[in-house]
Amino acid sequence: MKLAQIQEKFIALRNHGLFQGFIIAVIVTSALLIGAQTYNDSNAEISAIPLWFDTVIDILNSFITLFFLLEIIIRLISSESITSFLKDPWNIFDSLIVITSLIPLEGSETVLLGRLLRIFRVLRLISIIPELRVLLNAFFTAIPRIGYVSLLMFIIFYIYAAVGSIFFAEINQELWGNISISMLTLFRIATFEGWSEVMYESMAVHPLSWIYYLSFIFIVAFVFLNMMIGIVVESLYEEHEKENRETGKGESGEVHWIKEHTAEMELRLERIEKLLEAQLKATPKK
Amino acid sequence: MKLAQIQEKFIALRNHGLFQGFIIAVIVTSALLIGAQTYNDSNAEISAIPLWFDTVIDILNSFITLFFLLEIIIRLISSESITSFLKDPWNIFDSLIVITSLIPLEGSETVLLGRLLRIFRVLRLISIIPELRVLLNAFFTAIPRIGYVSLLMFIIFYIYAAVGSIFFAEINQELWGNISISMLTLFRIATFEGWSEVMYESMAVHPLSWIYYLSFIFIVAFVFLNMMIGIVVESLYEEHEKENRETGKGESGEVHWIKEHTAEMELRLERIEKLLEAQLKATPKK
Amino acid sequence: MKLAQIQEKFIALRNHGLFQGFIIAVIVTSALLIGAQTYNDSNAEISAIPLWFDTVIDILNSFITLFFLLEIIIRLISSESITSFLKDPWNIFDSLIVITSLIPLEGSETVLLGRLLRIFRVLRLISIIPELRVLLNAFFTAIPRIGYVSLLMFIIFYIYAAVGSIFFAEINQELWGNISISMLTLFRIATFEGWSEVMYESMAVHPLSWIYYLSFIFIVAFVFLNMMIGIVVESLYEEHEKENRETGKGESGEVHWIKEHTAEMELRLERIEKLLEAQLKATPKK
Amino acid sequence: MKLAQIQEKFIALRNHGLFQGFIIAVIVTSALLIGAQTYNDSNAEISAIPLWFDTVIDILNSFITLFFLLEIIIRLISSESITSFLKDPWNIFDSLIVITSLIPLEGSETVLLGRLLRIFRVLRLISIIPELRVLLNAFFTAIPRIGYVSLLMFIIFYIYAAVGSIFFAEINQELWGNISISMLTLFRIATFEGWSEVMYESMAVHPLSWIYYLSFIFIVAFVFLNMMIGIVVESLYEEHEKENRETGKGESGEVHWIKEHTAEMELRLERIEKLLEAQLKATPKK
Repeated sequence: MKLAQIQEKFIALRNHGLFQGFIIAVIVTSALLIGAQTYNDSNAEISAIPLWFDTVIDILNSFITLFFLLEIIIRLISSESITSFLKDPWNIFDSLIVITSLIPLEGSETVLLGRLLRIFRVLRLISIIPELRVLLNAFFTAIPRIGYVSLLMFIIFYIYAAVGSIFFAEINQELWGNISISMLTLFRIATFEGWSEVMYESMAVHPLSWIYYLSFIFIVAFVFLNMMIGIVVESLYEEHEKENRETGKGESGEVHWIKEHTAEMELRLERIEKLLEAQLKATPKK
Repeated sequence: MKLAQIQEKFIALRNHGLFQGFIIAVIVTSALLIGAQTYNDSNAEISAIPLWFDTVIDILNSFITLFFLLEIIIRLISSESITSFLKDPWNIFDSLIVITSLIPLEGSETVLLGRLLRIFRVLRLISIIPELRVLLNAFFTAIPRIGYVSLLMFIIFYIYAAVGSIFFAEINQELWGNISISMLTLFRIATFEGWSEVMYESMAVHPLSWIYYLSFIFIVAFVFLNMMIGIVVESLYEEHEKENRETGKGESGEVHWIKEHTAEMELRLERIEKLLEAQLKATPKK
Repeated sequence: MKLAQIQEKFIALRNHGLFQGFIIAVIVTSALLIGAQTYNDSNAEISAIPLWFDTVIDILNSFITLFFLLEIIIRLISSESITSFLKDPWNIFDSLIVITSLIPLEGSETVLLGRLLRIFRVLRLISIIPELRVLLNAFFTAIPRIGYVSLLMFIIFYIYAAVGSIFFAEINQELWGNISISMLTLFRIATFEGWSEVMYESMAVHPLSWIYYLSFIFIVAFVFLNMMIGIVVESLYEEHEKENRETGKGESGEVHWIKEHTAEMELRLERIEKLLEAQLKATPKK
Repeated sequence: MKLAQIQEKFIALRNHGLFQGFIIAVIVTSALLIGAQTYNDSNAEISAIPLWFDTVIDILNSFITLFFLLEIIIRLISSESITSFLKDPWNIFDSLIVITSLIPLEGSETVLLGRLLRIFRVLRLISIIPELRVLLNAFFTAIPRIGYVSLLMFIIFYIYAAVGSIFFAEINQELWGNISISMLTLFRIATFEGWSEVMYESMAVHPLSWIYYLSFIFIVAFVFLNMMIGIVVESLYEEHEKENRETGKGESGEVHWIKEHTAEMELRLERIEKLLEAQLKATPKK
């Protein structure tokens, strides 16, 4: 009972505008500090940031890490079991963020890793801003469908890459040398990056190779990228429709309202019919 | 009472087709004149526009400024308080446009500022054409959602920029020297602008860096730009649905009609049931 | 009466699959012949097409022109007045196509014009294939909305071009020399064509000019182009919804069905209520 | 009867997760092996794949071919006639895949063809993963509409190419030499690939040729590509709506539910009205 209260207070604190603003400010500032350090590395003269400022941010950062740690512990304790805790992918995400925040970064041989870990701490913004979670949810909902489109694109890339490495390898070893290089070249063509030069080069040897390039661009860039757009647009639309249905707003909301009230009307009509039948029986025959 | 009449007349004048056409013509002409002056600066021979024409447009411009000023003053007076006047962002926009139109542009030391102010006067077109206001409204409605997508993109840009400046800084100082230059480079990659050259350069040192580039392009250019498209498409769709619901046209209009009539039918059914129950009680039992 | 019959026969002939296929074949062949003539001009050796083939196609072409001419004359006669005939833009389009087909192309001084006119004859395909008319209808329905987005984009282009020609004219006269050249440069930037070079050049003088370029790309390429997509997607969706409503298919069709049947049910309920009230009055009071 | 049972077992085996995973693994591995062979060709040192592994995959591949062959034979036998078997395009697709898998690849003079055939075997993934079939179905449903947009784009390309080859042929023979080269150049411009260089070159001779380029880009890249997006988005949406209608989920599902229940309510109301009328007749007049 007491734990639930603590957790409630934590959630209240977490969702409090001011507290959120404070955490966002600290995370952004420390992210900017890391950015400034890349300046220090390249041209030392700019490093005008006083050392005490760095220290203050470090302390605030530790405080936030502590807060995140406490919160995740409370969430863990209040969940029924570790399995149910781990079922929510956001719990795993938050735990990972907290764990990487706890790793000490002082070891000299792990400078590179330490830097990377500090950079990834900016992801705590996603933990703290609910709207970003909603967006990422929409993204992850779309992943299975995006995955299948990607698989289909991969098959098409593979076939074109194999064909390309057979026909164009002797023309340009650097672009079509083997199947993986060919796939990279095709990805470049799919982004329209200097694809015409690649084609003109091939056409000098195989004059009909424009069929290869144009069909690839047509299939990949015009059809499958549009499918990607279609899937993302629909994922957002569905998310929105679902929300509308629950809040009763918009067309979906009205349709849902009509559905529920039609169900009620049906029941009422059934009652009316039964009443009438009862009455007809009760009415004295002529 | 009298003020309201004057305002009504102003609104009537403002929405009158001919008057609107006249104002649009003057604004466009004076915009073209500013454009022609940039020609004067570069090659003097083209400046064939007679001086009197310039003067006439100047006078007409002053007249329009006066009209806009009068109209905004009347709108200000007729609104309940300054606070309620300032609540409508379009009032603020129109006021700013009028104020910048009133600043005299003759001072020699403010030539640059004066020119900029004259250029921004073309924004008065937005004040005068209602359809443009509708479009901008749709744009501003989408801003919060676009904002969160942008924030998420910024986090991804930041992480990739930090990782990029760690790994690629020694390869090309100009592209990956520090975190802000890296973000600019990544923005360039997100628009597919010469990204393959940047990648080939990196791959010469780190052969696996194609993972960095391809994952970035996949996430940012294919997924998040599509999210942007999805959000804008949906904003327009919602705006349209809302309009349909009010006018009763289209599917949303029909759904709304059905909802209202279902509500009426429910009331009628309730009355019928009560009538029947009353009748059943009234009917003499056998 | 007789005219209507002739017109009916013409429409029947026009919509007949075989006849349509024949006309399409002739139009496409003569278009390919014009294409082959551009080969003749450049390298004479390819001109292996026998002269008699050219003559046959010419005769078939005259026959089609005659058919189109007859058809449009019958359409003109059978319409109530010239005004009502000209009200349908497709009539004007078809008439123009026929008239340009009738102009003799032999005059030596009008070689260029003659060639252009022959090229535009391929537009007769649009006259003969109904599906292309539907597509163009969808396109023209979207034009007013596309027009306002274009106008808004033009204002943004104008402001950015004016600002650009003020700040960057002395850096690169060829790109930012005057306001119209600047607009061309901005259009190029909006298509991401070599925009980073232009930006790097400007940043060498004004280090903060990346704000200018990034804000422009963000506004124009990411927001307004997406608005364009949104408008076209919605135009197609509406066209489709309208068709569904009429044929009763899809969600819109079902909603329309529900609307009509709800209206009927309301009338029936009204009758039931009246019957009941009449009955209640008729029922002998206890 | 027995055949149907065998077929049922085959379908059950085919849809079994483990078996599917096994087939996918073999197909992918053999595809990777083909990819690795392109390495062998270019730099022999990487060919560290032991020969026995190659042999094992070959045997497994033969087993899969056998499985596919058996399954397609059973499907063929169990269908009513060969005509009805060939009506389902997926049967034709699967048969082709099986037939090309059966062609022996050992002949020395058919090395190239053999390699190509082996590459296309990766398409068996589409046969085995149902989700990919759904995606391709959506794609093929959209083809007629995409076809008409493509035809319209082709007409526009043709007209612009003809005009371009008339005006720009003497400027750059390689880009505008004849109508087919011009169409290739226009396709390149439609992908924004180095279009500004082409334009600047033309503008040096014909200063107004920017109208040609900008109008082409506006029509093709902004309007027709958006139509393509719109068509693909709508195809996916319709597919989804149809699924929703059948499963009763989402807005379309609810609308369908309402439609069916409204029909039931109508029947009930009809019965009620008849009952009431009967009752009214039965009621003794005062």
